[in-house]
Amino acid sequence: MQNQLPAPLNLGEIVNRLGGELIGDPGLGVRQVATLESATPDTIAFLANERYLAQLKATRAGAVIVGSPLRGTLDMPHIVAANPYAYFARVSALFNPLPAPAPGLHPAAVIDPSARLGAGVHVGPHAVIGAGAEIGGGCSIGAGSYIGDGASIGADGLICPNVTVYRNCILGDRVIVHSGAVIGADGFGIAMEGERWLKVPQIGRVRIGSDVEIGANTTIDRGAIDDTVIEDGVKLDNQIQVGHNVRIGAHTAIAACVGIAGSSRIGRFCRIGGASGIAGHLSIADHVEISAHTLVTKSITEAGTYTGAYPFESNRDWRRNAASLRKLGELTSRVRAIEQQLQLRKKGKS
Amino acid sequence: MQNQLPAPLNLGEIVNRLGGELIGDPGLGVRQVATLESATPDTIAFLANERYLAQLKATRAGAVIVGSPLRGTLDMPHIVAANPYAYFARVSALFNPLPAPAPGLHPAAVIDPSARLGAGVHVGPHAVIGAGAEIGGGCSIGAGSYIGDGASIGADGLICPNVTVYRNCILGDRVIVHSGAVIGADGFGIAMEGERWLKVPQIGRVRIGSDVEIGANTTIDRGAIDDTVIEDGVKLDNQIQVGHNVRIGAHTAIAACVGIAGSSRIGRFCRIGGASGIAGHLSIADHVEISAHTLVTKSITEAGTYTGAYPFESNRDWRRNAASLRKLGELTSRVRAIEQQLQLRKKGKS
Amino acid sequence: MQNQLPAPLNLGEIVNRLGGELIGDPGLGVRQVATLESATPDTIAFLANERYLAQLKATRAGAVIVGSPLRGTLDMPHIVAANPYAYFARVSALFNPLPAPAPGLHPAAVIDPSARLGAGVHVGPHAVIGAGAEIGGGCSIGAGSYIGDGASIGADGLICPNVTVYRNCILGDRVIVHSGAVIGADGFGIAMEGERWLKVPQIGRVRIGSDVEIGANTTIDRGAIDDTVIEDGVKLDNQIQVGHNVRIGAHTAIAACVGIAGSSRIGRFCRIGGASGIAGHLSIADHVEISAHTLVTKSITEAGTYTGAYPFESNRDWRRNAASLRKLGELTSRVRAIEQQLQLRKKGKS
Repeated sequence: MQNQLPAPLNLGEIVNRLGGELIGDPGLGVRQVATLESATPDTIAFLANERYLAQLKATRAGAVIVGSPLRGTLDMPHIVAANPYAYFARVSALFNPLPAPAPGLHPAAVIDPSARLGAGVHVGPHAVIGAGAEIGGGCSIGAGSYIGDGASIGADGLICPNVTVYRNCILGDRVIVHSGAVIGADGFGIAMEGERWLKVPQIGRVRIGSDVEIGANTTIDRGAIDDTVIEDGVKLDNQIQVGHNVRIGAHTAIAACVGIAGSSRIGRFCRIGGASGIAGHLSIADHVEISAHTLVTKSITEAGTYTGAYPFESNRDWRRNAASLRKLGELTSRVRAIEQQLQLRKKGKS
Repeated sequence: MQNQLPAPLNLGEIVNRLGGELIGDPGLGVRQVATLESATPDTIAFLANERYLAQLKATRAGAVIVGSPLRGTLDMPHIVAANPYAYFARVSALFNPLPAPAPGLHPAAVIDPSARLGAGVHVGPHAVIGAGAEIGGGCSIGAGSYIGDGASIGADGLICPNVTVYRNCILGDRVIVHSGAVIGADGFGIAMEGERWLKVPQIGRVRIGSDVEIGANTTIDRGAIDDTVIEDGVKLDNQIQVGHNVRIGAHTAIAACVGIAGSSRIGRFCRIGGASGIAGHLSIADHVEISAHTLVTKSITEAGTYTGAYPFESNRDWRRNAASLRKLGELTSRVRAIEQQLQLRKKGKS
Repeated sequence: MQNQLPAPLNLGEIVNRLGGELIGDPGLGVRQVATLESATPDTIAFLANERYLAQLKATRAGAVIVGSPLRGTLDMPHIVAANPYAYFARVSALFNPLPAPAPGLHPAAVIDPSARLGAGVHVGPHAVIGAGAEIGGGCSIGAGSYIGDGASIGADGLICPNVTVYRNCILGDRVIVHSGAVIGADGFGIAMEGERWLKVPQIGRVRIGSDVEIGANTTIDRGAIDDTVIEDGVKLDNQIQVGHNVRIGAHTAIAACVGIAGSSRIGRFCRIGGASGIAGHLSIADHVEISAHTLVTKSITEAGTYTGAYPFESNRDWRRNAASLRKLGELTSRVRAIEQQLQLRKKGKS
C-alpha cells in the first residue's frame, strides 16, 4: 500500500456521496480501502464474490461493502450496494484520486513553438511535443514521452512516462496511456516483389476515443490507408498488439498479451481473455467473450463465449493424448469402419 | 488519412515511372492512394484479391490498379500490373515518402565526442549516442533513443523515438526500427548452482543486415557467446521476441507477438504467423510457413505449411471436446480393443 | 563477440579462484570463453551436454570445461567441474564483468533534490529520479530511465536505459532491469457499472527482492490494493506480463512472453516455459515446471511437469485432425455406443 494514508472519511459521508444503504454507525471514520484479508480497523473492505465469505467472517476491517443478500446479516458496519465492486471502485477513487502532476512545463521538455497546449497542462522532463501537436487542458505528459507532429490529445489525459505517440494520431478526452505504449507505429504492410519485400507506406492514423485506457507496452499500429480506430471506453491491458486498420468497439475490454491482426473489427462490450489472438480481416459481434489463449480464425456473428485453449495436464498424460491427437483423423475413420462393419452384420442377420 | 494530400501525379507519369499498362486517360491526375471503399475521385485504389470485386464495382476512385485478368473489363481508368499489390506499394511510395527529419543534431541530444556521424544525420532531442558509436549518412535517430557504446548503424537508417540499441550491436543500411524496440539486451542465460541462479554473461552482439524493419516493442537479445544474426531483408512486426544466438534467414517475414527461443535458426523466405513460438535449438528450412498460434517443437526440414493451433468453438462445444481430449489416449485404446474383439469374432466365425 | 578481448588468465589461476580439477598445463593462458564450434586456441570452451561430443572432438579451443565422466579422456587441457555450465558461467564472469558505468550524475539527468543517492551511483543522461526516491550505492540508472517519486532501489542495481519504475515501487539489491521494462504500471482493474467501465484505483506497489533480473519490455503491474511481489533470485526473461497482486516465489525462472494474470501465486524454484499463461487467482506449488505455450487454468498442488500445447504438424494433417477434434465429444459417444452394442450381443449370446 501507499506510504501515506489519505484523510479519513466517515461512513455517513461516503453514503451521502455515493449512495447505497449504511447499516451501522455513520460517524465511523475510515482512511483507506483494503482487502478483507489485510484490512485494519481504519479501512473499508468489500465482498463481491461469495467465494470469499470466510474471509469476510475473519476480517478486521472497520466496515465492509456488500450486496443486498448480506444486508443486516453482519455485526460489523456495512454498506449495501447493488454492485459492490463498482461501489468499492468509487470509494477507492475518493481516497485515491489519479496522480495529477502539478501544471507546468519542465524546462528540460522540448515543445515545438507551433504546438498548442491547453490550460493546466503538465509536461515532464525530456518529453517532446512535436510541431502542430495539440494537448488538451489538464493533460499530463510524462517524462520522456514523445508526442509526434500533428498529434492531438483531448482534455485531462494522463500520458505516463516513456510513451510514444506517432505523428497525426488522435486521442480523446480522459485517456490514460501507460509507460512503454506505442501508438501509431507503422502497420506490418509488405508486398513481395520478385524476391524482395517492398514496404507499403502506412498513411493512416490511429484514432482513439474518450475514456480509453491503454496498458504498458501495448502497441497500436497506424492504418495502412484508412485509420485504426479505438472507440470510447475501450480498456486495453498491457502488451496488447493492435494491427493496422483494426476497429475496436466501444467499452470492449481486452486482457494482456492479446494480438489482433490487421483489419479485424471487434464489436462493442466484448471481453477478450489474455493471450488470445484474433486473425486478420474478421468481424466479431457485440457482447462476445473470448476465453484466454484462444485463436479466433473465423468471424463470430453471435454473442456468446468462445474458447480454443488446449487443456493442460501432467506432461505424461499430455504425451499420450497429444500422440493420439496426431492420429485423431485416422481414429475417426477407424470408428466409422467399425460402425459400418456392425451395421453390415446387423443387416446380415436380419 | 494524413492531413495534407501530396501533389498530384497523372496516370501517364505513374506508368512512365513504374511500368504497367494504362487503360484510360493518361492526363488524369490523382493525389493519393485509397482503399476501394473510401476512395474519392482524386485517388487511385487497387484490387489484389478477387474477394473485393463488389467493392471495385462500387468504388468512387479516379483510377484503379488491377491484375491482367481484369484488363479492359472496366469502364474506369485502370493500370494493369503483374503484381497489383506491389505496384500499389510503389505508387503509394511516390505519394508518401518515408518521413525524413531534417539533418541536424538537436542541442538536447547527448552525443559522445568519439562517436562518428555520417553526412546529413538527424539526431532528435534527448537521444544519446555512446562512445565510439557509428551512425551512417542520412540516418535519423529519434528523440529519446539510445545508441550504446560501439554500436553501429548503416546509411539511411530510420530509428524512431524511444528505441534502445545496446553496446556494440551492428545494424546495416536502410534499417527501420520502430519505437520501444530493444536490440541487444542480455539473453536469458542462467545456470543453476546449488539453489541459486548464476548469470551467464552475454558477450555476443546482435548483427542486423540491410533493409530490415523491426516493429514496435520488439526485442532482439544479444548472443550469449557468438552473435544473434538477422539477415538482409527480414521484416519483423511488433512485440516479437528473438532469443540469444538465433539466426533469421534473409527475407523472412514474421508477424506480431512471435517468440523465438535461443539458438534456433530460421531459414530464408519463411513466413511466420502471429503469436507463434519456435522452441530453442531448432532448425527451420527455407520457405517454411508457420500458421498463427503454432508452437514449433521440432526442426522442420521441408518447405511447406505447418500448423498447431487449437480450433476455437463455442465454449459449450469446447468443454465437451476438451474433456474428451483429456481421455483421448484412453479412447484410442478402447477403439483398438473393439477392433481386436471384432477381429476375434471374425476368426471365430471363419 | 566483443571488440576487445580481456586480459588473459592462465588455467592455474582459474582453478585457484573457482575450484575444479585441472588436467593439463596450469601455465596455459586463455583470454575469453567461447563455444566449442567457434573457439580459437586462446579461448576456453565447455561441454555441458553430451549431445555436443562431436563438437568437442573438433574444437580448436585451448582448453575445455567438462564433467567428471570425461576426466582424463581428452588430449587437450581440461578443467573437470561438477557442474560444467555453472563453472563456465563463473569463468565467463571473470573475463566479462557486468558493465559498470563510471560513478557520476550526468548534467542532463533530472534528479529531484529530495531523492537520496548512495555512494558511487551513476545516473545517465535524461534519466529522471523523482521526489523522495532512494537509489542504493553502486547503482547505475541508465539514460532515459524514469524512477518515480518514492521508489527505492537497493545497492548495486543495474537499471538499463529507457526503463520505467512507477512511484513507490521497491527493488532489492543487485537487481538488473533491462530496457523497456515497466515496473508498477496500473493493474487491469475495472468494474462494469451500467454500461461503462469504472477504473479501480491501483494503490498497491511492486516489491522486488534481491538478485532479480527483469528482461527487456517485461511489465510488472502494481497491486490493486496490496502489493505485487517478486521474491529473491527470480529471473524473468523479456516481454513477460505480471498482473496485479501476483506473487512469484524465490528462484523461479520464467522464459519470454509468459503472461501471469492477477492474484496468482507461483511457487519457489518453478520453471515456466516461453509464451505460457497462468490464469488468475491460482496457486502453483514449488518446483513446478510448465512447458512452453501452455495455459494453466487450475491450481497445481504437486511438483512435476505440466503441458498443454497443441502438437504442431503439417497443415494438411492438422486440418484433418482439427476437424475431428471439433467432433471428439461426439466420437467418444459413438465409441461408447459401439461398446454397449457389443456388450449386449455378448449378453445375448451367453
